[in-house]
Amino acid sequence: MGHFVRAAFVAVGSELLRTPRLDTNSLRVGEKLAGRGVVLVEKRCVPDEVAAIARAVEELLARADLVLLSGGLGPTADDVTREGVAQALGRKLTLDEGILGQLEDRYRRLGRTMPSIARRMAYVLEGADVLANPRGTAPGLWLSLGSQAVVLLPGVPEELDTILTLHVLPRVTGRPFLVRTLRVAGRFESEVEQRVAPLYPRFGREKITILASRGTVDLVLGAETPEELAQMDQAFSEVLQDDLFGRDEATLAQVVLEALKERRWLLATAESCTGGLVGSLLTQVPGASEAYLGGVVCYANSLKARLVGVPEDLLTTYGAVSRQVAEALALGARRLGAQCGLAITGIAGPGGGSAEKPVGTVHMAVATPHHVEHRLYRFGGSRQTVRELAANFALDLLRRTLKGAP
Amino acid sequence: MGHFVRAAFVAVGSELLRTPRLDTNSLRVGEKLAGRGVVLVEKRCVPDEVAAIARAVEELLARADLVLLSGGLGPTADDVTREGVAQALGRKLTLDEGILGQLEDRYRRLGRTMPSIARRMAYVLEGADVLANPRGTAPGLWLSLGSQAVVLLPGVPEELDTILTLHVLPRVTGRPFLVRTLRVAGRFESEVEQRVAPLYPRFGREKITILASRGTVDLVLGAETPEELAQMDQAFSEVLQDDLFGRDEATLAQVVLEALKERRWLLATAESCTGGLVGSLLTQVPGASEAYLGGVVCYANSLKARLVGVPEDLLTTYGAVSRQVAEALALGARRLGAQCGLAITGIAGPGGGSAEKPVGTVHMAVATPHHVEHRLYRFGGSRQTVRELAANFALDLLRRTLKGAP
Repeated sequence: MGHFVRAAFVAVGSELLRTPRLDTNSLRVGEKLAGRGVVLVEKRCVPDEVAAIARAVEELLARADLVLLSGGLGPTADDVTREGVAQALGRKLTLDEGILGQLEDRYRRLGRTMPSIARRMAYVLEGADVLANPRGTAPGLWLSLGSQAVVLLPGVPEELDTILTLHVLPRVTGRPFLVRTLRVAGRFESEVEQRVAPLYPRFGREKITILASRGTVDLVLGAETPEELAQMDQAFSEVLQDDLFGRDEATLAQVVLEALKERRWLLATAESCTGGLVGSLLTQVPGASEAYLGGVVCYANSLKARLVGVPEDLLTTYGAVSRQVAEALALGARRLGAQCGLAITGIAGPGGGSAEKPVGTVHMAVATPHHVEHRLYRFGGSRQTVRELAANFALDLLRRTLKGAP
Repeated sequence: MGHFVRAAFVAVGSELLRTPRLDTNSLRVGEKLAGRGVVLVEKRCVPDEVAAIARAVEELLARADLVLLSGGLGPTADDVTREGVAQALGRKLTLDEGILGQLEDRYRRLGRTMPSIARRMAYVLEGADVLANPRGTAPGLWLSLGSQAVVLLPGVPEELDTILTLHVLPRVTGRPFLVRTLRVAGRFESEVEQRVAPLYPRFGREKITILASRGTVDLVLGAETPEELAQMDQAFSEVLQDDLFGRDEATLAQVVLEALKERRWLLATAESCTGGLVGSLLTQVPGASEAYLGGVVCYANSLKARLVGVPEDLLTTYGAVSRQVAEALALGARRLGAQCGLAITGIAGPGGGSAEKPVGTVHMAVATPHHVEHRLYRFGGSRQTVRELAANFALDLLRRTLKGAP
């Protein structure tokens, strides 16, 4: 347990310098530490080299009291974070029989023999506490150095997250800085910005961050007291109204599934241009099967007719990307045995556009026992951006429809 | 003009440490410099503080010959990158009348009077070359220091991009550093490592990076000459054999779709636990419709029977997660009008596991006109990890089946 104020983060991995891969672990670490009042004063990416890691630790211990590293704890020869830290601090690495046993167990449970290189993960910095990793193989390490500490964490985000929450945060106290995220869907970033901008002077512009991500917009609110946070939440929520779909970790898929469960309705999907993306987002939520039946990926027109009974003449007269076909798909999805059908058909690009229906044209529809809702969008961006925007706007259309349905 | 080998990048901005905003400028800089043979040896995010910026420049000049900074060149009080670099190098800042005139012109053209704080942008490091910014207000700066150089660039991505291309790259020549990625599927990271490790001494361990990502493993090879790269590629390819599915930007979905097109075969999918993830990966590839028909997301058992005709007694006798049902799903998918059917059924967790079929159990099958291939896996990790592993291992099973098919 320690009182820390200034933290620094090092993402270890040559790929972070040589490829377009971005370090996102620093975001998790930064956010969680901020919740404990610890400020991130610097972050870095360094290659998988003992000397580079050692130098980073030495330099950062001169200006931070908590230095965290992620990555380079795995079994392979380029995993040298332990060695780098050992060199910086002049500590030895010793084999920990307890960890070794757990590693062997883990491989046995997965029905595989442990490769000999995996033994490297059982080496521990002299004097370090071992931080168990319930989600993966390599454990984390915590090394206290008087009033400072160095922490080694795995690079796999979910493993890092778990160890951070279970073992690191409980050892950290500081002045809390409170953060809440308001999650918005069905609007573009600039619309949201324009709506909330009048609130900036009241709370201070620097306390609000807007982040857009393909169909959802996050408003991150920062406050120094619970009262201030509650006031900010209230003021922004009032302005956002129905566009606000949840807070913090809530996802559109979760919110939609909850709303379906409340009504005891089942959902089925019929996806064309999104090719299964909506189904994939829905089934990412544990327990999705209570409200999601499944559906069809009717990428080819033959499947639109065959699996969900879209009349051939609709396809010929209006084209696969049309309001008529979107609505027929949603109604056809319902007939799979669900109260609710959701359908998407569009032109994701880069080819396939026309003057009348340019790339980015997406029709979506929701069918309920009571009525059918339809929306037409012209999304900008790459093929994948159009697909992700379509999936999220469609989930949001379903959310709004469920909210308004009798 | 200079011959540079090692570059370091500093993104200046407190928001990069306090909010979920990520620095992406380093990716642009890294990619463009790599094209000139300059390797990025470190990157950092530091706050808008003179001392922090100065320290970064000092430390990085000790190990890089080209140090680039982005951000903090604007007019406001927290834009202190010029001051930080000036402090690190013991240089003065002087007002440049030429820049001042351009700034005043620019504001006039936009119909606004120049605010007095904007004068800050006209200050230049003693001895620096001014890099004109045709897309924005603040110019960049290039300061030569013997065989080294420090470069200040604006933080706005399009302004940074333009100045980089117009003014920075023409001044940079280096020894080209060549990179190639060998992409591997159907194996776990430690298996791949063990296979290729004997090649490390021949080429040098530091030239090879292994990256695992839920069902695919990347071997990133670095070389100094095209001959060396060709030798590395050949040696590693020989060891990897059929596990190698492509190079560089190739994806499993692309490779599978190409193999289908070559045979003029269509594919249909039947996904249970992956809920549309395979369809979503396939349709991410432009032109997927030439080989992918679509399929069903048969999350509920009722849809397994209804849409792809899995006999009810198979579901009752063996359970939805079984070899028999996986094979029936793959055959049912074929009957949607495709030569090839791909099916996945499994337990993604966190609930739903049993002693006999623990969480992570996934059956997958591929049906062709000639035969049916089946695989059973026990994947470790979270729900989403299991799903992504299942999707990628299934695409890989299809790839291998297509390769071996008569």
